[in-house]
Amino acid sequence: MRIGCIGVGKMGGGLARNLIRSGYDVVVYDIDREAVKRVLKVGGSAVHSPSEMAAMVDVLFTSLPLPKHLTDLLIDESGILDQMQPGSTVIDVSTIDPRTARLISDAASQRGLQFLACPLGKGPVQAEEGTQPIYAGGKREVFDQFESHLNKISTSVHYIGDVEQATAFKIISNLIGMTNVIVLCESLRLGEKFGIEQQFLQKLLATTGADSYQLTLRGPKILNQEYTPGFSVNLTLKDIRLGVSMANDLNQPTPFGSLAMEFFQRAQNSGLGEEDCAAVYKLFE
Amino acid sequence: MRIGCIGVGKMGGGLARNLIRSGYDVVVYDIDREAVKRVLKVGGSAVHSPSEMAAMVDVLFTSLPLPKHLTDLLIDESGILDQMQPGSTVIDVSTIDPRTARLISDAASQRGLQFLACPLGKGPVQAEEGTQPIYAGGKREVFDQFESHLNKISTSVHYIGDVEQATAFKIISNLIGMTNVIVLCESLRLGEKFGIEQQFLQKLLATTGADSYQLTLRGPKILNQEYTPGFSVNLTLKDIRLGVSMANDLNQPTPFGSLAMEFFQRAQNSGLGEEDCAAVYKLFE
Repeated sequence: MRIGCIGVGKMGGGLARNLIRSGYDVVVYDIDREAVKRVLKVGGSAVHSPSEMAAMVDVLFTSLPLPKHLTDLLIDESGILDQMQPGSTVIDVSTIDPRTARLISDAASQRGLQFLACPLGKGPVQAEEGTQPIYAGGKREVFDQFESHLNKISTSVHYIGDVEQATAFKIISNLIGMTNVIVLCESLRLGEKFGIEQQFLQKLLATTGADSYQLTLRGPKILNQEYTPGFSVNLTLKDIRLGVSMANDLNQPTPFGSLAMEFFQRAQNSGLGEEDCAAVYKLFE
Repeated sequence: MRIGCIGVGKMGGGLARNLIRSGYDVVVYDIDREAVKRVLKVGGSAVHSPSEMAAMVDVLFTSLPLPKHLTDLLIDESGILDQMQPGSTVIDVSTIDPRTARLISDAASQRGLQFLACPLGKGPVQAEEGTQPIYAGGKREVFDQFESHLNKISTSVHYIGDVEQATAFKIISNLIGMTNVIVLCESLRLGEKFGIEQQFLQKLLATTGADSYQLTLRGPKILNQEYTPGFSVNLTLKDIRLGVSMANDLNQPTPFGSLAMEFFQRAQNSGLGEEDCAAVYKLFE
């Protein structure tokens, strides 16, 4: 089985390296030549274009920043689904919205191809370690066919349902997590204004009902004013936008998500786009 | 040392029983006779009015629902600070705002009395077990004088600073926690709309950056639609109001706290006041 990987940056790169280490025959492509080199150090080979890859792989992993990048690659601009061999499978690990996932899934079906939407639960560190949670969506029989392979690059593979459920789940998880980050920033700043030292404040909050994964993960960034991402403001804004938009499609109100979107937009406008999402703290200074 | 307890309901009652079990000479008062009876089963004695208690105790614990109840008791309506013996100490364990705490602290000083603001970190269960975190504020020497006594009713006593810091800290902790609750409700409902079963959704979210103390504590209430408080919508609304108001005093914006206040107000208006704060979930149905 030959595997192709398009997009081998922070997230896709870790997956590609783990596939190679697990003994698979892996071909990679990325517009960033440095990202490709970082994979080739471990093994595998590279191609010069997505089209070149399409015809030669049984499974194609994609990891791209935006839903539009993915539809351009697979259906529109490059349209490489048309060049893939019937019976082969696309496994996307990007964070995309349910509507785009459905569009790709249907386009794949029409060409006799299989599709799984497999958004990832954590960050680049876990992708590299092979401990990245995978939330898989698509036809159950396709998942069953690939479960053992996914287990080679993840210690925690979950079958969520169809592609809509898997992609919605990932976005919902980010919607909660990233909104919790701003809620935290707002109050951490308030505590400082009341003269409570930041480190002491965070340590005490962890003993109360205010405790959260984001307090543990992003509290130290705020404390040290060190905002290397992690998960950037730009990506956060993108995901929250997808969340608010997919909720709108179902007439489901997301007042807190919408307010969070406003603040991350403001952070981006203030030049914080490439900093970690915890940098929204600066908006409260 | 004789200790008085005014307000022996869910929180104050647990503290009073622990003081009695620790061997202190305890006198209690509450407008709710049943609450008083639940203390007397363990020991201690009761008086018929706060005034009667004021002159006979060395330390007065107060645990009341609203800041106004406390100022009425101590300064205005009942004004029992005037009846306390010079050198005695008031220890308030209610959740009050920094401004009220300062007012009481100054009023106590003027009468030769001591004051500690000691808001509590968790719920009635911890008050009863004696594992209730205490966040103490006031003069350091007063805290030092009472630390060993506070350790009898709490396994985790923290000195925060002056009364403003301790009371602000407690409110900030609730502001984060209770806002996280609505953020969670908004997204849990969105997940259900996408056809993800609630229990599965919560279990998976706990493996992501969406995890929080509130997911663990209130997720099951939402799952089982069982909203016995816990911490009621009414009390939540009160605390968030105090938080937004104390932030306004410092010109510090709390857009998420303000939005949360709107939703808990709406929940109260919908007749959910006596249900657990997790019942805001119903606003998204």
